[in-house]
Amino acid sequence: MISRMSTMFLRTLRDDPADAEVPSHKLLVRGGYVRRIAPGVFSWLPLGYKVFRNVERIVREEMDKAGFQEVHFPSLLPREPYETTGRWTEYGDNVFRLKDRRDNDYLLGPTHEEMFTLMVKGEFSSYRDLPLSIYQIQTKFRDEARPRAGILRGREFVMKDSYSFDVDHEGLEASYERHRKAYISTFDRLNLDYVIVSAMAGAMGGSRSEEFLASAEVGEDTYVKCSCGYAANVEALIIPMAEFDPELNLNVDLPSSHVEDTPQTPTIDSLVAMSNARTDLARPDRAWLASDTLKNLLLMVRDGSGTDRPLAIGVPGDREVDMRRLEAALYPDVARPFEEGDFAAYPMLAKGYIGPQILGKNGESGIEFLTDPRVVRGTRWITGANVSGKHVFDLVFGRDFDSDGIIDVAEVIDGDTCNECGGHLEKARGIEIGHIFQLGTKYAEALGLRVLDENGELVTVTMGSYGIGVSRAVAAIAEQHHDDKGLVWPREISPADIYLVAAGKTPEIFAAAEDLADQWDALGLRVILDDRKGVSPGVKFNDSELLGIPTIVVVGRGLEKGVIEVKNRVSGERSDLSVDTVVADVHRICTT
Amino acid sequence: MISRMSTMFLRTLRDDPADAEVPSHKLLVRGGYVRRIAPGVFSWLPLGYKVFRNVERIVREEMDKAGFQEVHFPSLLPREPYETTGRWTEYGDNVFRLKDRRDNDYLLGPTHEEMFTLMVKGEFSSYRDLPLSIYQIQTKFRDEARPRAGILRGREFVMKDSYSFDVDHEGLEASYERHRKAYISTFDRLNLDYVIVSAMAGAMGGSRSEEFLASAEVGEDTYVKCSCGYAANVEALIIPMAEFDPELNLNVDLPSSHVEDTPQTPTIDSLVAMSNARTDLARPDRAWLASDTLKNLLLMVRDGSGTDRPLAIGVPGDREVDMRRLEAALYPDVARPFEEGDFAAYPMLAKGYIGPQILGKNGESGIEFLTDPRVVRGTRWITGANVSGKHVFDLVFGRDFDSDGIIDVAEVIDGDTCNECGGHLEKARGIEIGHIFQLGTKYAEALGLRVLDENGELVTVTMGSYGIGVSRAVAAIAEQHHDDKGLVWPREISPADIYLVAAGKTPEIFAAAEDLADQWDALGLRVILDDRKGVSPGVKFNDSELLGIPTIVVVGRGLEKGVIEVKNRVSGERSDLSVDTVVADVHRICTT
Repeated sequence: MISRMSTMFLRTLRDDPADAEVPSHKLLVRGGYVRRIAPGVFSWLPLGYKVFRNVERIVREEMDKAGFQEVHFPSLLPREPYETTGRWTEYGDNVFRLKDRRDNDYLLGPTHEEMFTLMVKGEFSSYRDLPLSIYQIQTKFRDEARPRAGILRGREFVMKDSYSFDVDHEGLEASYERHRKAYISTFDRLNLDYVIVSAMAGAMGGSRSEEFLASAEVGEDTYVKCSCGYAANVEALIIPMAEFDPELNLNVDLPSSHVEDTPQTPTIDSLVAMSNARTDLARPDRAWLASDTLKNLLLMVRDGSGTDRPLAIGVPGDREVDMRRLEAALYPDVARPFEEGDFAAYPMLAKGYIGPQILGKNGESGIEFLTDPRVVRGTRWITGANVSGKHVFDLVFGRDFDSDGIIDVAEVIDGDTCNECGGHLEKARGIEIGHIFQLGTKYAEALGLRVLDENGELVTVTMGSYGIGVSRAVAAIAEQHHDDKGLVWPREISPADIYLVAAGKTPEIFAAAEDLADQWDALGLRVILDDRKGVSPGVKFNDSELLGIPTIVVVGRGLEKGVIEVKNRVSGERSDLSVDTVVADVHRICTT
Repeated sequence: MISRMSTMFLRTLRDDPADAEVPSHKLLVRGGYVRRIAPGVFSWLPLGYKVFRNVERIVREEMDKAGFQEVHFPSLLPREPYETTGRWTEYGDNVFRLKDRRDNDYLLGPTHEEMFTLMVKGEFSSYRDLPLSIYQIQTKFRDEARPRAGILRGREFVMKDSYSFDVDHEGLEASYERHRKAYISTFDRLNLDYVIVSAMAGAMGGSRSEEFLASAEVGEDTYVKCSCGYAANVEALIIPMAEFDPELNLNVDLPSSHVEDTPQTPTIDSLVAMSNARTDLARPDRAWLASDTLKNLLLMVRDGSGTDRPLAIGVPGDREVDMRRLEAALYPDVARPFEEGDFAAYPMLAKGYIGPQILGKNGESGIEFLTDPRVVRGTRWITGANVSGKHVFDLVFGRDFDSDGIIDVAEVIDGDTCNECGGHLEKARGIEIGHIFQLGTKYAEALGLRVLDENGELVTVTMGSYGIGVSRAVAAIAEQHHDDKGLVWPREISPADIYLVAAGKTPEIFAAAEDLADQWDALGLRVILDDRKGVSPGVKFNDSELLGIPTIVVVGRGLEKGVIEVKNRVSGERSDLSVDTVVADVHRICTT
């Protein structure tokens, strides 16, 4: 196929769009691949849609190869099944809701668990019908609070979602493994560099769950990896509990707590500096560290019914609470920091000097108090004295205070201990391109999907759910495959095999370019022919690099000497090939 | 590719679904192709989605072949551009509207004129960039008042919509012709039997407009055709004005009007019967006909701003007002019949006996009065006398009454006169599968799409709009290609080439069927292998006919004698082929 720049519906932009921050967004807009319509809502231009369709085709082929069957659901979904599973409410603001002319409630499908469950219920009734894996590639809608980064996190996007149906957990494990394998094949073929990390099933409710994260600095997901092979999304990461010495006699072996005036210590750093500077407070064995201080955060937590409850969380002062870990730990409840009004209801809380002595369900405040896994019996802390301007030193957990339980929501720091091997964790960022998880019977139970087993007994079907962000994968690929001049598409993703530049003004040059385009087209190669008249070679070269087609061919001055320039967009390598052999040579480059 | 009935996500139904009235709906549900989710909202099962994708592929290939470039818009569209063109309001209840979490207004795209116009405005600026034709294949949403007939008229459906952009009308004509040709190729390839009829541009506002209607008794569109080749949608049909004799002296040559008591004449028929029966009223030259009576209909018409106005329409008594023609004639205003309250406001209107003497803007009632093209100077009528129980006879148009203008909304009757050749029109029904029309500058003007012309002057771009109902085409094909046993897909549309039945219980039969499936698969044929165990040959045969795969192969008892049965689903013809040559024979059947 030959596409001509002279008639193509495409205008490349010289400058980065003002609203774009990440490379893929900038380049996809500059290259005329996508255009913004509304926040998180984009249109595809011709070259962009070709890239999208290439990605979609690869995903579909890999699903078909794995034996999954394609179906297709509507986007406009009735309220009832979502009411039955409780998600009509649970989704909160994240789902688009609407009414039809008869005032019936609908939502725009953000995901389709309910519909798949009901579809299988409608057709199948026996264990003999299972296992079954079905999928769709479909437009999804989510009213994201913060759509960002172009098509990386949009409000209307395309997903491939699959579901597996089995009679028992063993079957589910097998279906899960088949999907995992199919995902590996898919992402390999998409030329993505990715890791598979343990994840929280989160909103979906379930057990085993892994995410496929494409490595990218701009990724929204933080994960940790260890040289032992362990990798986990920070939400799913498990921090080892600190060890304690059972022999330790807290009353004898540790100093008593003492309250001290600590003026001008608005930060953890200033508190630590002062503690080390004052000889009466300095530790004999070593300097005080930020990790010796205990920071107590007050939150107001709202549950599904809209009821608020206070919650205090104690973490070592050297680290913040990670909001995503907190969100995952409290899900489906939602937390916000204490506000003035909240403090007013608890006058015993001295803002900035809150200490655990009055926290806990049995404490003076009655506020539930959860602590970091590093806060264990025998650990001694500098923390607030519940009096403005005063801190308490050598407050010992298990002697001077206690908590209502553990909460593991502190930020992860490079070098933290791996729970698997005891080694050091390293933090990295990625884009979630796939997610597989074992739903179990949650949806089948809610919606009554049961089949007769071998003994004629009704059993609830167990399900798996598997998603790939198809439009997001386009952005992830662009994020991993670009340089300072533009996009650099892997060949199977690229909208064309060859970008063929007619660089010159003579009819001979244009005729030679046309002739080459025809020959490559006849060989089944996809050619973009830059046949624009009155456009300088410089502009054409820039566009050829911005658009990112893997092979660039230039028909220019060399033609007189029988030479055609061929450039590899990935390596930047250029070579002058003979006009006599260039057709075969480039065909070989494009097909091997 | 081999699909196995033993694992396929498919259950055929023995009985027609209760809510289905038209054959395509019944068969697509019975064959396990589609399932209803909500009124006018359907899911595709695996075989159905294959059919859908085949249709989509053909449409896409024909558009690409014509040189149109594919783009893709979101479904979630912001209010602003639709506000600018006035369609946010104009759409009324037919569009799905919703708000996002920030309370911004959106609609679900029912059609994309505004977005295409803005997209071209964003990229192009010169006459040199034009002509341009771009298209998308996309899910559309319309909140139909009466979704019906399965996927024939749904609320969520897939359309291919194209738009052309030209600097002048001559360019638009050329673009229109290119689309018309591409549509002919597309519908021919879809194996549809269709007519191209003149149409009203309707909601889109424009000039030249044609519809592609697939002939089908269940079609919602009525059109008329003439042996001269003229064909038109009834909404667009033009009825020739009745001729009148300019020499006629209305006062001398025609009898005077006279009011008569006409008891017990509640219907036109009874009025005509009485008029002929009473010697004092009978016409000397011929019997009175229903077409000699003038029926006056009172309507209340609401315009875009919500303001009501009364309207009277006079049509010959032998025909009703056609509601679709009326809707088209008044568009975008909307009419309803007079209700009691309306009559109360006009006491001079004697219900059931309304005559034109008091109608018209200058008449006693002041109500606008429009008449059928058959009501011309010198025609004499029996009509209401505006007194209960009385009619007036020999009321002459141009002498005794007049109207404010012509309205051509009476129903069309087989045998009506063709405006082109004077011949007889014939009525038929069809399914609208395509619509092409010249939008002109309406959208470009509203949204400011202008380009610089050759002289450096800004000119408004002129547009064409072209649609194909992709999911509806699936139903239209099913409507035209079925028999009493089931569907009969054209090969290129069919989800498979061969339905291969293993009809028997012996391992030899199953092994032979598997072997044949492998061989055809290797030759690139798409095979559905009915390898179900414990399912009787009768059930398999029924399914093979219901599903409508063009070639049915039966491996059964004949195998022992070296014979395989091959059946043509279209003709019903069966032949026994030798097992030695059947692979090549069937390959030939499937590829020629």
